[in-house]
Amino acid sequence: MNTKHRARLLVSCVDQPGIVSAISTFLFENGANIVESNQYTTNPTEGRFFLRLVIEGEALEQKEEELKTAFQPVADQFQMTWKWSFLHNKKRTAIFASKDVTCLRELLYQWEGGNLDTDIPLVISNHEAGREIVESFGIPYYYIPANKDIRKEVEAKQLELLQEYEIDLIVLARYMQILTPEFVAEYPAEIINIHHSFLPAFIGANPHKKAHERGVKLIGATSHYVTDDLDEGPIIEQDVGRVDHRDQVEDLKKQGSLIERTVLYRGVKWHLEDRVIVHDNKTIVFN
Amino acid sequence: MNTKHRARLLVSCVDQPGIVSAISTFLFENGANIVESNQYTTNPTEGRFFLRLVIEGEALEQKEEELKTAFQPVADQFQMTWKWSFLHNKKRTAIFASKDVTCLRELLYQWEGGNLDTDIPLVISNHEAGREIVESFGIPYYYIPANKDIRKEVEAKQLELLQEYEIDLIVLARYMQILTPEFVAEYPAEIINIHHSFLPAFIGANPHKKAHERGVKLIGATSHYVTDDLDEGPIIEQDVGRVDHRDQVEDLKKQGSLIERTVLYRGVKWHLEDRVIVHDNKTIVFN
Amino acid sequence: MNTKHRARLLVSCVDQPGIVSAISTFLFENGANIVESNQYTTNPTEGRFFLRLVIEGEALEQKEEELKTAFQPVADQFQMTWKWSFLHNKKRTAIFASKDVTCLRELLYQWEGGNLDTDIPLVISNHEAGREIVESFGIPYYYIPANKDIRKEVEAKQLELLQEYEIDLIVLARYMQILTPEFVAEYPAEIINIHHSFLPAFIGANPHKKAHERGVKLIGATSHYVTDDLDEGPIIEQDVGRVDHRDQVEDLKKQGSLIERTVLYRGVKWHLEDRVIVHDNKTIVFN
Amino acid sequence: MNTKHRARLLVSCVDQPGIVSAISTFLFENGANIVESNQYTTNPTEGRFFLRLVIEGEALEQKEEELKTAFQPVADQFQMTWKWSFLHNKKRTAIFASKDVTCLRELLYQWEGGNLDTDIPLVISNHEAGREIVESFGIPYYYIPANKDIRKEVEAKQLELLQEYEIDLIVLARYMQILTPEFVAEYPAEIINIHHSFLPAFIGANPHKKAHERGVKLIGATSHYVTDDLDEGPIIEQDVGRVDHRDQVEDLKKQGSLIERTVLYRGVKWHLEDRVIVHDNKTIVFN
Repeated sequence: MNTKHRARLLVSCVDQPGIVSAISTFLFENGANIVESNQYTTNPTEGRFFLRLVIEGEALEQKEEELKTAFQPVADQFQMTWKWSFLHNKKRTAIFASKDVTCLRELLYQWEGGNLDTDIPLVISNHEAGREIVESFGIPYYYIPANKDIRKEVEAKQLELLQEYEIDLIVLARYMQILTPEFVAEYPAEIINIHHSFLPAFIGANPHKKAHERGVKLIGATSHYVTDDLDEGPIIEQDVGRVDHRDQVEDLKKQGSLIERTVLYRGVKWHLEDRVIVHDNKTIVFN
Repeated sequence: MNTKHRARLLVSCVDQPGIVSAISTFLFENGANIVESNQYTTNPTEGRFFLRLVIEGEALEQKEEELKTAFQPVADQFQMTWKWSFLHNKKRTAIFASKDVTCLRELLYQWEGGNLDTDIPLVISNHEAGREIVESFGIPYYYIPANKDIRKEVEAKQLELLQEYEIDLIVLARYMQILTPEFVAEYPAEIINIHHSFLPAFIGANPHKKAHERGVKLIGATSHYVTDDLDEGPIIEQDVGRVDHRDQVEDLKKQGSLIERTVLYRGVKWHLEDRVIVHDNKTIVFN
Repeated sequence: MNTKHRARLLVSCVDQPGIVSAISTFLFENGANIVESNQYTTNPTEGRFFLRLVIEGEALEQKEEELKTAFQPVADQFQMTWKWSFLHNKKRTAIFASKDVTCLRELLYQWEGGNLDTDIPLVISNHEAGREIVESFGIPYYYIPANKDIRKEVEAKQLELLQEYEIDLIVLARYMQILTPEFVAEYPAEIINIHHSFLPAFIGANPHKKAHERGVKLIGATSHYVTDDLDEGPIIEQDVGRVDHRDQVEDLKKQGSLIERTVLYRGVKWHLEDRVIVHDNKTIVFN
Repeated sequence: MNTKHRARLLVSCVDQPGIVSAISTFLFENGANIVESNQYTTNPTEGRFFLRLVIEGEALEQKEEELKTAFQPVADQFQMTWKWSFLHNKKRTAIFASKDVTCLRELLYQWEGGNLDTDIPLVISNHEAGREIVESFGIPYYYIPANKDIRKEVEAKQLELLQEYEIDLIVLARYMQILTPEFVAEYPAEIINIHHSFLPAFIGANPHKKAHERGVKLIGATSHYVTDDLDEGPIIEQDVGRVDHRDQVEDLKKQGSLIERTVLYRGVKWHLEDRVIVHDNKTIVFN
C-alpha cells in the first residue's frame, strides 16, 4: 500500500455528542477515506474523548495545508486538541546510546527492515562502542563524553545537534545518563526511555541486582516517556521473561537485554505510528 | 455503567467513501452517542469494510424498533449487511457438555462473576457428570445419551429444546460428539467448539496422544465456530502452554484442560459481546 | 505408577566432594532406586549444596523407620540438614479463605482432579461465602469471624483446629487477614500466601488500584511463603497477564483473579511435591 | 567460574539399580565434583535411563584421556551409551545462511556476547547478503550458489569445507535448501534447522501463507534436528507470538522472524551445552 497518500489525525476533547459525525463528515466532504479508526473515552457523559484516524485520499500529501486549515472550524467547535501527521513527512528520530549496544542494534535493524517509519539522522553516544554499526548504516555518530559533572555542557551540545537535525523523537537506547528538567522540557512526551525492570518494581539503579536479591521468578522491561521524575513517566509497553534460582545477576542482565530490545522497539514503533497518547501520566495505546 | 441504555451495531459492506460519516451522523441525529468503535477493511479501495459500534442513549432500549426502522435507508444506501444487539435483551446460551466438566465449570463461574453477558437457560449433556454443579446454579440439566448410531434422534431432541428455550448460541464445552450438517445449518456461526490442540496441528481425535508422539514443546487449544468440516471452522482464539519430555499423555490432558477453559471462555465472551465477525472462513475479532 | 512405594529426600549441606556418591550408594545398598534427581549449589567449592531425590523401592513404605535410622550416619558425615517424605503419608493442608472464593475453588478442583497430592481436612474462613462449595467435597468448613481487633483470639481458635487436624501446610487463598509473628512462627515456610500483584511492585493493600494509577501494561500475582515482613517472604511463583488503558480497577481485579488462582495452585503443588527449598529468603524450585 | 576445568558426561542405558551410585563414586574417587545433574527415565523398572552431569576438578582438562579410559569399565558394566565433552575443547559450529540474515545475525551477536559456547570457523551461504556482517566478526564467508539441480555438487563442496574446518554442528539459519540423505547421514543429530511455523502445523513451504489462509491467532517457530523426513525431525524448542486479522502474510513473516531468531538461538545454545538428547525421534532437554 502506498502510504504517501495517507495521514493520521489524533484528537482529544471533552466527550459530547456529534464528534465522530462532524469529523467523518468533514473528511468525506474533503475526499479522504477513513482506513483505520480507534477511539476511547474515559466516560461517555462527562469524560475525555480520544480519537486516532488514519485517512487516505488521492494526492492527499498535496492537500496538507488546505486540509489543516479547513479542519480548524471543526476543531474549534468541540475545543479539540489535535495533531495531524502526513505520512510523506517522516518523523526524525535521534538515538542516544552508551556502552551496551543491544537496543541500539535492534532499532537499526528493525528500521532497516522497514518496521520503523522514521528517518534516523544521527546517533549520539557517550561511548565509542556503537560507532562501527551505526556508520555501517551511513548514519552520523556523535561521540559526546558525558557524566553528571558536565551535564549542562553535554546537554547544550546535544540540543544544538537535535535542533540542527530537526529531531522529533529522542530514544534513550540504554543511555544511562539522567537528563535535566530543562532538557526534558524541550521534548515533552518525545523522549522514550527503556528501563531494565518491570516498573514500578526496582526503580532506579541496578534493577537486576535488586531483582536477584528479592528472588523474583520473572524479570521485565518497561519503555516509557521521560518526565522529570526518574522512572515515573507514562508507561508505553512492558514485558517479562522467566528466570530461576540458578540465574545470577549477570544472567539476569543478559536475559533482560533480550526483553528490553523488544519492549523498546514496540514503544518506539507505536509512537512513530501515532498510536500513543499521554493522558494523566498514563498512556492510551491504540493497537 | 448502566448497559441497558446501550446497543451494538455490526455492519459490513463494500468499502467506499462516506460510510462512517453516514452512520455516525444518523446516530447523532437520533440521540445515540458512540462509546466504542472498531473498523477494519480488507482494502480501502475495493475491499470489504467491517464496523462494530457500541452506542448509548437516553432510554435507548425503548427506541429499538424506531431506530432499526430509521436505519434501514442508511443500510440500503451502502448495501450493508447489518445486525443490531440491544443490551437489555441478553443473548441466550445453551451449553453442551459431556464427561469432562472443566470447561463447563469455568463458563458457569465466569457467568456467575458477571463476565459473560448472557442468560444460560439450559445445559445438555450425554453424561450425568455435570448435573450437580449445573443444578446448583438453578439451571435445568438435560441428560440426553448420545452416540453416533442415534445421532439423528438425539439431535431432534436437542433442537426441540433449543427452540423451546429460544437459544442464540450453543457452546460445545468438550461435548465430543460430531454434529450433522443439518444441525449445524440451523445455527450458522452460532456454535462455538473448543478443540484441544493448536489447530491446524493435530486435527481430529486424540490430539494429546499425537502431540506426545510428535514430541512438541508447547500444547494448545483453539476455540472456533463449528462448520461442516470437522475442526476446519473459523478460529476465534488460541493459546498455548509449555510442556517437556517428562509429560505423558495424561499430563498433557491435564495441562491442556487449563488452557482449554480459558480459550473457550474468551471465545464465548467475545462472541457474546459481538466482537467476532466471520469473513471468508476466518474471524475478525474486534478487541 | 504406584506412588506408595516412593519417598522424597531433601538434603542441604556445605558443598564438598563425595555427597552424591555417599547418598546414592546408601540408597543402592538399601534397595532404593533413584527416579528423579535435582541438585543445585550456590558455589561448588565453598557454597551450599541442595539435593532433591525421589526414590522407589519394593515395599518402601514399610521400611520408613529403618531407612531413616540407617541414613543418620550419612547425614552426620556431611552435617546435612535433611527431610524425608514418604508418599504413603500425605501432607495435610488447611485452606484459609475469605469472601473471594476463586482461589479456594481452584485448589479444590485441582485436588479433586488428582493434581494436588494432599489431604484437605478443613477450610477456615472469616466469611460464609465458600461453605457450599467446600461442604460439597465433604470437607468441614469452619466459619471464624476475624478482624484486627480480635486477632489473638481468632488465631488461638485457628491454632487449636490446626493442631487437632495435624496440619502440615496452610494456604492463604485470598484470606486477607494479617497473621501475628507468633502464628507465623508455628509454621515456618509452611504458610503460602497469594499476593495480587507482581511483587515487589505494589506491596500492601489495594495493588490493583495502585496498578491502575501507575498505568502498567501487565498485572501479576505472586505466591510466597509468609514471614513476619508483610509481602516480603520468599517468592515461589509469579505470573502476569496483559491489560490496557481501557481496563478499570474492577477489570484488573477480575483478570487478576485468573492469574492468582494459577500462581497459587502452582506454588502449592510444588510445595506438596517437596520441590521448594527456602534459602536466604529466596526459593530454590526444582522443576 | 573457570569452565576450563569442567566436563560434561551424557549417559544412557537400560534403567537398573546402582547406576548413579557407580558413576558418582567413580567421579569422587577420581577427584571430580558434580556441579550439575539431570536425569530422566522413561520407566524406573524397565525403561531407558538418561543422565547429564557437569563435573569440575583441579586440572581436569589434563586428565581427559585418563578419565575416559578409567570410565570404560563403569560404562561396560551397565552397557551404557556415553559421551564426554571437556569444556576446554569448544565445539565447532558452521552456520548455513541464505538471503534473510535475521537468524544469522542473532547467532553472531549472541556468540559475541558470550552466550554460545562454541567456535564459529565459517559461514556458508547461497547468497551474498550476509557477507559484510560475517566478515566484520573476522569469520570466513563462503558463497556457494545452490539450487536443487546442482545439489550434489554443492554438498560436495560444503562437506569438504566442513571436514577441513572440523565442524561438529551445522546450524541452518534459514538456509532454505533441502539436504540429501547422504549429507544428513554425515551429521546425525548434528544439524539444527529453524522451521518458520509451530510444527507439525504448516509443514513444508510457505507456512506463513498457509497460516494466513487458515486464520490462526498465533504464529510460531520450531528448532529441530534435521532428518531425512522434511520437518519431521526431533523438536528441540518452539515458541509462538500473537497475530490478528489485520496481519497480512508479510506481517506474519516479519513478526515470525523475531520468534525464529529466539527459538533457533535457544536450540543451538542448549545443543552446545549438551542439554539435548535424542530418543525415539523426540528430544529430552535438560534445562
